[in-house]
Amino acid sequence: SEIACAQDYEALAHQFIEPKRLAYIEGGSGHDRTLQLNRDAFQKWGIIPRPFADMAHATTALTLGSHALEHPFLLAPVAYQKLVHPNAELATAQAAAATDTTMVSSTLSSVTMEDIAEHSGAMRWFQLYLQPDEQNTTELVIRAVKSDYQAIVVTVDAAVQSPSIRVLRAGFVMPNEITAANLESQFQKPHEGVSKSRIFSDYMVSAPTFARLEKLIRECPLPVIIKGVLSPQDAAALHDLGAAGIVVSNHGGRTLDGTPASLDLLPAIRDAVGDRFPVLLDSGIRSGSDAFKAIALGADAVLIGRLQVYALSVAGALGVAHMLKLLREEFELCMAMTGCQSVTAIRSTTLHSVMRASC
Amino acid sequence: SEIACAQDYEALAHQFIEPKRLAYIEGGSGHDRTLQLNRDAFQKWGIIPRPFADMAHATTALTLGSHALEHPFLLAPVAYQKLVHPNAELATAQAAAATDTTMVSSTLSSVTMEDIAEHSGAMRWFQLYLQPDEQNTTELVIRAVKSDYQAIVVTVDAAVQSPSIRVLRAGFVMPNEITAANLESQFQKPHEGVSKSRIFSDYMVSAPTFARLEKLIRECPLPVIIKGVLSPQDAAALHDLGAAGIVVSNHGGRTLDGTPASLDLLPAIRDAVGDRFPVLLDSGIRSGSDAFKAIALGADAVLIGRLQVYALSVAGALGVAHMLKLLREEFELCMAMTGCQSVTAIRSTTLHSVMRASC
Amino acid sequence: SEIACAQDYEALAHQFIEPKRLAYIEGGSGHDRTLQLNRDAFQKWGIIPRPFADMAHATTALTLGSHALEHPFLLAPVAYQKLVHPNAELATAQAAAATDTTMVSSTLSSVTMEDIAEHSGAMRWFQLYLQPDEQNTTELVIRAVKSDYQAIVVTVDAAVQSPSIRVLRAGFVMPNEITAANLESQFQKPHEGVSKSRIFSDYMVSAPTFARLEKLIRECPLPVIIKGVLSPQDAAALHDLGAAGIVVSNHGGRTLDGTPASLDLLPAIRDAVGDRFPVLLDSGIRSGSDAFKAIALGADAVLIGRLQVYALSVAGALGVAHMLKLLREEFELCMAMTGCQSVTAIRSTTLHSVMRASC
Amino acid sequence: SEIACAQDYEALAHQFIEPKRLAYIEGGSGHDRTLQLNRDAFQKWGIIPRPFADMAHATTALTLGSHALEHPFLLAPVAYQKLVHPNAELATAQAAAATDTTMVSSTLSSVTMEDIAEHSGAMRWFQLYLQPDEQNTTELVIRAVKSDYQAIVVTVDAAVQSPSIRVLRAGFVMPNEITAANLESQFQKPHEGVSKSRIFSDYMVSAPTFARLEKLIRECPLPVIIKGVLSPQDAAALHDLGAAGIVVSNHGGRTLDGTPASLDLLPAIRDAVGDRFPVLLDSGIRSGSDAFKAIALGADAVLIGRLQVYALSVAGALGVAHMLKLLREEFELCMAMTGCQSVTAIRSTTLHSVMRASC
Ligand SMILES: Cc1cc2nc3c(=O)[nH]c(=O)nc-3n(C[C@H](O)[C@H](O)[C@H](O)COP(=O)(O)O)c2cc1C
Ligand SMILES: Cc1cc2nc3c(=O)[nH]c(=O)nc-3n(C[C@H](O)[C@H](O)[C@H](O)COP(=O)(O)O)c2cc1C
Ligand SMILES: Cc1cc2nc3c(=O)[nH]c(=O)nc-3n(C[C@H](O)[C@H](O)[C@H](O)COP(=O)(O)O)c2cc1C
Ligand SMILES: Cc1cc2nc3c(=O)[nH]c(=O)nc-3n(C[C@H](O)[C@H](O)[C@H](O)COP(=O)(O)O)c2cc1C
Repeated sequence: SEIACAQDYEALAHQFIEPKRLAYIEGGSGHDRTLQLNRDAFQKWGIIPRPFADMAHATTALTLGSHALEHPFLLAPVAYQKLVHPNAELATAQAAAATDTTMVSSTLSSVTMEDIAEHSGAMRWFQLYLQPDEQNTTELVIRAVKSDYQAIVVTVDAAVQSPSIRVLRAGFVMPNEITAANLESQFQKPHEGVSKSRIFSDYMVSAPTFARLEKLIRECPLPVIIKGVLSPQDAAALHDLGAAGIVVSNHGGRTLDGTPASLDLLPAIRDAVGDRFPVLLDSGIRSGSDAFKAIALGADAVLIGRLQVYALSVAGALGVAHMLKLLREEFELCMAMTGCQSVTAIRSTTLHSVMRASC
Repeated sequence: SEIACAQDYEALAHQFIEPKRLAYIEGGSGHDRTLQLNRDAFQKWGIIPRPFADMAHATTALTLGSHALEHPFLLAPVAYQKLVHPNAELATAQAAAATDTTMVSSTLSSVTMEDIAEHSGAMRWFQLYLQPDEQNTTELVIRAVKSDYQAIVVTVDAAVQSPSIRVLRAGFVMPNEITAANLESQFQKPHEGVSKSRIFSDYMVSAPTFARLEKLIRECPLPVIIKGVLSPQDAAALHDLGAAGIVVSNHGGRTLDGTPASLDLLPAIRDAVGDRFPVLLDSGIRSGSDAFKAIALGADAVLIGRLQVYALSVAGALGVAHMLKLLREEFELCMAMTGCQSVTAIRSTTLHSVMRASC
Repeated sequence: SEIACAQDYEALAHQFIEPKRLAYIEGGSGHDRTLQLNRDAFQKWGIIPRPFADMAHATTALTLGSHALEHPFLLAPVAYQKLVHPNAELATAQAAAATDTTMVSSTLSSVTMEDIAEHSGAMRWFQLYLQPDEQNTTELVIRAVKSDYQAIVVTVDAAVQSPSIRVLRAGFVMPNEITAANLESQFQKPHEGVSKSRIFSDYMVSAPTFARLEKLIRECPLPVIIKGVLSPQDAAALHDLGAAGIVVSNHGGRTLDGTPASLDLLPAIRDAVGDRFPVLLDSGIRSGSDAFKAIALGADAVLIGRLQVYALSVAGALGVAHMLKLLREEFELCMAMTGCQSVTAIRSTTLHSVMRASC
Repeated sequence: SEIACAQDYEALAHQFIEPKRLAYIEGGSGHDRTLQLNRDAFQKWGIIPRPFADMAHATTALTLGSHALEHPFLLAPVAYQKLVHPNAELATAQAAAATDTTMVSSTLSSVTMEDIAEHSGAMRWFQLYLQPDEQNTTELVIRAVKSDYQAIVVTVDAAVQSPSIRVLRAGFVMPNEITAANLESQFQKPHEGVSKSRIFSDYMVSAPTFARLEKLIRECPLPVIIKGVLSPQDAAALHDLGAAGIVVSNHGGRTLDGTPASLDLLPAIRDAVGDRFPVLLDSGIRSGSDAFKAIALGADAVLIGRLQVYALSVAGALGVAHMLKLLREEFELCMAMTGCQSVTAIRSTTLHSVMRASC
């Protein structure tokens, strides 16, 4: 097969996704600086083999707060999956079910969360964007509860987005037939571009202030996880506010260009919240060893964004399931070679900081 | 539109400026080493999003000594603007007026400072090169006072310039019809090249010694700001001499090639002069996030050099005004995403030092 | 001659080895990241000339535990040498004999260890992969003893290998006529790829656990050296277990991709085991000065992997002997220029850490 | 003119020197690693402008031990100058005379030291290679004294040279008509290649041991300066032995490839010998600002190697004189822009360590 590792879906997807759509999916905001930093961050760390352990009883299972996971890979919320495959989020949900993977379903999914729920496995979370009209926000949460989603993931880093230069150059616009299926017509989705001169007031339309988050956490019957946290102080504050966990994420380099890699900020955040608070990470993960590094540096588990879309475009549900299987095997190989018999053991592993002679 | 961000005017200008003139404008001195360092300096810093603040009452306004500014972008003194647009400095002045921007008008402007004053808005400063004949210097200051300029900016880093290899190769010479409109015929402008062997004596013709600066500050009715300061000791000395502020600048990489980036030297300079002395910065700013970084590292405000010329060449007054609007929006986005409700708040922000794994 | 230095055999081999086979030999695992790091690690160090010593009585001889060596270069175990030359390991053995070089013969040699023994010189070691069936392991050891091998080198880093993307792309498969001559038909060789989903149980088939190693060391009549050690803790544990020495090695970048360079990990390992425990190093050595650096950083001697195969492909036994001669001369030049009259003296040499300005 | 700076002679020389000879002159030993490091070392440092000083009485003059120099540039010993110009060392000597420059004449000059003495100015030094037969060494010194050379510079880093891969590939061999004019027929010049296997004994033929140097210093009527020193300990030892000074040099990257840049080793060497011992530097200097940096980091003066040959090839004596004039002007510009009124003042200047974000 041409697919030797999970990352191979990236190059292959170029044959399956139309160029403008690819620009939208692959690109970051601004000049893709953060996008590069995300990848680069993993290269700075080396894994030291310690191949002497008995792996007979090793396992990738873990618990995350009240949730038991088979392995530390989750499917990140990714909007508008109809862009790359007709079965869209339904295919992704099937792959999640087949591989014991928790799927985080986006507010901006191109099929409804109810339809996704029917196809996905036991584990599903709902990703929420705060809506301009608070009542709409509440309705989304109620629907998620009804459809047996087990957690709400509030994404806080996309209230205003800096435009992607690449997307603007490519001339991508969302096709009319692809819509945010969860949202009523009155919905005003987060701005994807800088409005004419009123950044600050625009920002307030859906700004995730602590006050709003505190209210949501208090009123929501499900655990609330905050996605898009990059500062240790904010992480500690959210912990104190009652959040059920955080996702250290820069939205895959799609918000403020020039943001550091989320991996680079992870250790200080873990320090700030202590060992037992659920901390997930995404942005830039392309292999099982990337996941291993993230966990060694402080994460409990990781979310997979673009690889999910790439695999979906190539082979639908099967592609996503295969990609997840490869990731897991790559990850298990790292565990075997380092003698880590559990995911928790990885957290005690010391990575080697790679410094290259530049030339 | 093709213009997605302020920096896009740079590439676009290549279609509007004739190659030899472009070499003169774009190039740095020597082998462009400092020019590269200037850009590079901003890449070393990452901005950490903290998107939780209420931005309803946020503002970009600030005060700089006795001056109230709507936003922290000033137009740097740039000579001979007729090189790129027939309306030259007059167009730039109109853009400044339209966007509440302080314009710093060059000694070497291609229209007179009096004409510029008529077109520019309320805020205008005059940039002064010390003249070989002291009386000429005095006359320039008197004219600036008469035309209601509100500050004198003395540029100290161009008494002798190392030639730009790129300009020499391109074969650029100043066209006859473009002249320094402010200067009488007897004027001897600063040397743009190394004279035959008498660097030291040539240098003394217009060397900005502390003695000369002290006299100027004492006698000048306007606040005197010193542009081209890069050493903490000098910054402190100028503060003690009575300067109204300084501009940390390497002239956009156009003086001594091999000079470090002004951004790299900024923090030590801020330390040396304390929190309340006006410190501006230029050299290498191409986006609102660059300005944000400069302020986070110690500047009160920033000057925009080349982007001004590029936008002027593309669309005259409208171009400059549009470029400034984009810069401001990019800057406001950074404020919103970091929860900075004022420019002063940015000064308490901590940037993340980005270290890349080199390939 | 076209061969100016030992490394020149690398480029030349491209004309002698068929592309698919070359991919197999040259490539590392995964995306060749570790392969690059291996080379890069040597570039980070500079040798400071101190050309004032009297070299009249200088020597490259050393002792390694109970073994006396003429010089610190050994031939690393490299499998299946028939891939590049019909005389295969027999030619390599002849070159070893001719140059007073210790050859480490691989479990996976394409001629039997008995035939190799007949051709090689006085010094030969046998490299052992633990076999799934313990009795097979024992038999290999017994044969090695009978054939007068003087040490057993157990390679621990290849129980499972991550596939080489390059090899998969090239479509290399081992030709039918090339087999592991030492092994009976019932043999199951270490997995070269990730099996369908049972990494952990597969791993246990030939995992080199401390328990197994301890038993082997205890029962084996020959000194047992462990190859593939990269962690200081493991090095210390193996020392305490009774190993006769270790080889700090990442298998030339052929096991877990992303592993740091073995040279980078060497100093901490030497610290952990003390000055007198035999520590060898391989992975990335291409010149006499690389060997000099490895010794200065803590190794007693070094193993040569790929250069051996390259020279074999170009000119058989003569090629390997010539390559070894060049390595030795390059190494002697370093000794002369640094005033080191013995290999031990190199260990007291301080290298200069080279930091480059990146462009 | 096409020549905008001293370094421009480098590119231009490609049109004047035949490729094989150019390979010999331009190349370093081995794979040119040290050659690159030499250039790179200067890029790591930035000069901070401090343009406020009164330069009316500034000067580039200095004293070096008992020698008074007009400026801190010397012409390094460069062998066989007939390779690039028929007038060879005689033209170089004339340029030295015309520009008040001290010329260091090589043992391996292609015209005799007596002829050179007739053409050169007041200041000339003789570079000595220790000869296999000690009596020949003595004779060279006696001739240098007779011809009024004022110092002996013993080069210690070329007793054995690692071959330049570039030169070997280019197929350069010294033309028959170009000879070492100073040397009798019985002379055996230092080996330029690794002899068959007897590095150590070969090395002893002309090894510059401390014993030999001590004798030479004691018996020689002229001050003896040692060229090719890179270790602080050796520098201190030579100081104690009675040397009149040292040249920190890696022979322009032409001895052991992988040697660090001489600039990188300079500060520790200056520390080791104290402030008043003459320390010169060469290897990699291509501009006046490079010289400025070398002096700021601890040198008293610098030697110019390759630029000398390049300028000679382009325009004979005039070329060398012009190149020296440009260097001096570039250097004076640095002094003016940093407010250094003397060469000694540069030694108190602090450079800025430039750290680049790698892309
Ligand atoms: C095309 C695309 C759409 C996305 N849509 C959403 C979304 O609707 N909600 C959300 O919280 N994150 C969204 N993300 C961000 C992902 O959840 C995740 O943070 C990011 O993709 C992780 O980085 P990676 O792509 O490098 O794995 C999107 C990302 C991409 C690439
Ligand atoms: C074409 C050009 C002309 C300039 N003319 C002047 C001038 O007359 N006076 C002055 O103080 N600075 C002058 N500068 C320097 C600018 O004021 C400013 O310091 C520099 O352009 C900032 O760097 P930037 O171009 O990267 O923004 C000039 C710069 C350029 C590019
Ligand atoms: C083609 C090839 C086959 C190898 N086979 C073996 C082997 O059978 N046993 C073993 O312990 N190491 C084996 N190695 C690893 C080498 O012993 C050695 O660790 C490695 O090649 C050193 O790195 P270098 O090639 O950069 O010198 C092999 C390496 C290569 C390139
Ligand atoms: C072609 C060539 C010939 C040289 N010949 C000698 C020599 O005969 N004696 C000596 O001491 N150094 C010799 N050198 C070294 C120079 O004296 C000097 O150390 C070196 O060139 C400085 O580096 P640069 O070329 O980067 O300036 C030679 C260098 C070159 C390039």
